[in-house]
Amino acid sequence: MGFIYNILKNSRSDKDGNFFLELERILGFKPKKNAIYKKAFTHRSMNIKDKKGNPINYERLEFVGDAMLGSVIASYLYSKVPHGDEGYLTKMRSKVVSRQHLNELGKDLQLIDLVQSRIPTTNFGNNIHGNLFEALVGAIYLDKGYKSCEKFIYKKVINPHVDIEKLEGKVISYKSLLIEWCQKEKKTFEYEIYEDTGNDALKHFSVKLKIDEKVISKGRATSKKKAEEKASKRAFFAFQREMTKSS
Amino acid sequence: MGFIYNILKNSRSDKDGNFFLELERILGFKPKKNAIYKKAFTHRSMNIKDKKGNPINYERLEFVGDAMLGSVIASYLYSKVPHGDEGYLTKMRSKVVSRQHLNELGKDLQLIDLVQSRIPTTNFGNNIHGNLFEALVGAIYLDKGYKSCEKFIYKKVINPHVDIEKLEGKVISYKSLLIEWCQKEKKTFEYEIYEDTGNDALKHFSVKLKIDEKVISKGRATSKKKAEEKASKRAFFAFQREMTKSS
Repeated sequence: MGFIYNILKNSRSDKDGNFFLELERILGFKPKKNAIYKKAFTHRSMNIKDKKGNPINYERLEFVGDAMLGSVIASYLYSKVPHGDEGYLTKMRSKVVSRQHLNELGKDLQLIDLVQSRIPTTNFGNNIHGNLFEALVGAIYLDKGYKSCEKFIYKKVINPHVDIEKLEGKVISYKSLLIEWCQKEKKTFEYEIYEDTGNDALKHFSVKLKIDEKVISKGRATSKKKAEEKASKRAFFAFQREMTKSS
Repeated sequence: MGFIYNILKNSRSDKDGNFFLELERILGFKPKKNAIYKKAFTHRSMNIKDKKGNPINYERLEFVGDAMLGSVIASYLYSKVPHGDEGYLTKMRSKVVSRQHLNELGKDLQLIDLVQSRIPTTNFGNNIHGNLFEALVGAIYLDKGYKSCEKFIYKKVINPHVDIEKLEGKVISYKSLLIEWCQKEKKTFEYEIYEDTGNDALKHFSVKLKIDEKVISKGRATSKKKAEEKASKRAFFAFQREMTKSS
């Protein structure tokens, strides 16, 4: 059923513009060159070719997206880690653009829901999420240029996920940092967790972090652990000065 | 003597602006953020540090330049090689940005003449040329942004040196292609070579390529072979239609 559903869904979304509505929600802007985004979500199993017989699917766009991610993250790290030498910066970058991380990014954006494929999407391995993410980044570059592509990478990768302190191994977990600080400062803390899937296809959890019975921050993610970590990180940045003084 | 000369030369050029005159000649535009270019030509042996103790030399800039070269070449190949899959494009790119090629690029621009170093430049290995080239590309990005950096890479790398036919292994040598064609077409050919070093620090050769006793194209490079190849390539593009028809 999976693949029939998918083909039906996609041919329909093509007509009624659902694909582009959904895409626009993910992008945060209106795409100009529509064909390039269709390509970014076309799996090779569709076996579509251009007039010259060149295959149309997202694989070549991954190459472009990978390169754009590489240079945007490189210049970000160059400015944020002034003490890091070339080798150190290279290692940090490969953590940011690791296969696992790219897969998580693609999964969070639910890119797989937009794919046109003759193979049931349930048959794909985990890497399709990251591949689609790379292809999408490549499409954005080809549609809107480097600046817009950089902006998208900041919005979806750097701002929400890249944490220099963590990458440098200085902070392993914001939750443990926070708990340690609360204990030292004789403050009570509580993580209030509830399921909060809403309209999302994936299960989501929300967390309220209370310190001394006051809600300090919130976090929402696809696992309890991640949601707690998000809330802890936000609290950390709120209390940063106090926490680093006392720890 | 080498290193004393170099320090003297550089401290002088710093004062009288020779460094920036020479740099502007290489860049083809006026730099805005001067300090970043000074950094791009400062060797670690100078042991210069910023206020926070971070070393100031070109090594970190190589990281940025390498990434920029990667993405500019990636998007160029994406559009020029529509039949190439991800793996093929990756291989082509690594030929363009190979260590050997980057070293040649840096050497052609005589970047080493601008270096500030406490080690005699004659003691450096061959890789310094490529490293300086990468660092310069990184500096251009940080000074003027992606568009200008891309323009520089087109001007210095892609337009003069990247040849899709050659990269794809379809053309090994334009000289042999040209000779073959002349023989088939019963045309006489002659490569007229002379030394043409002019004011350059490196030895240069010029070639006039005559076909049926008429000068068809010229080439100039640091070796006879390269100069001949340049002239042949120019002739090839002039005669392209005829040559590909008959070969």
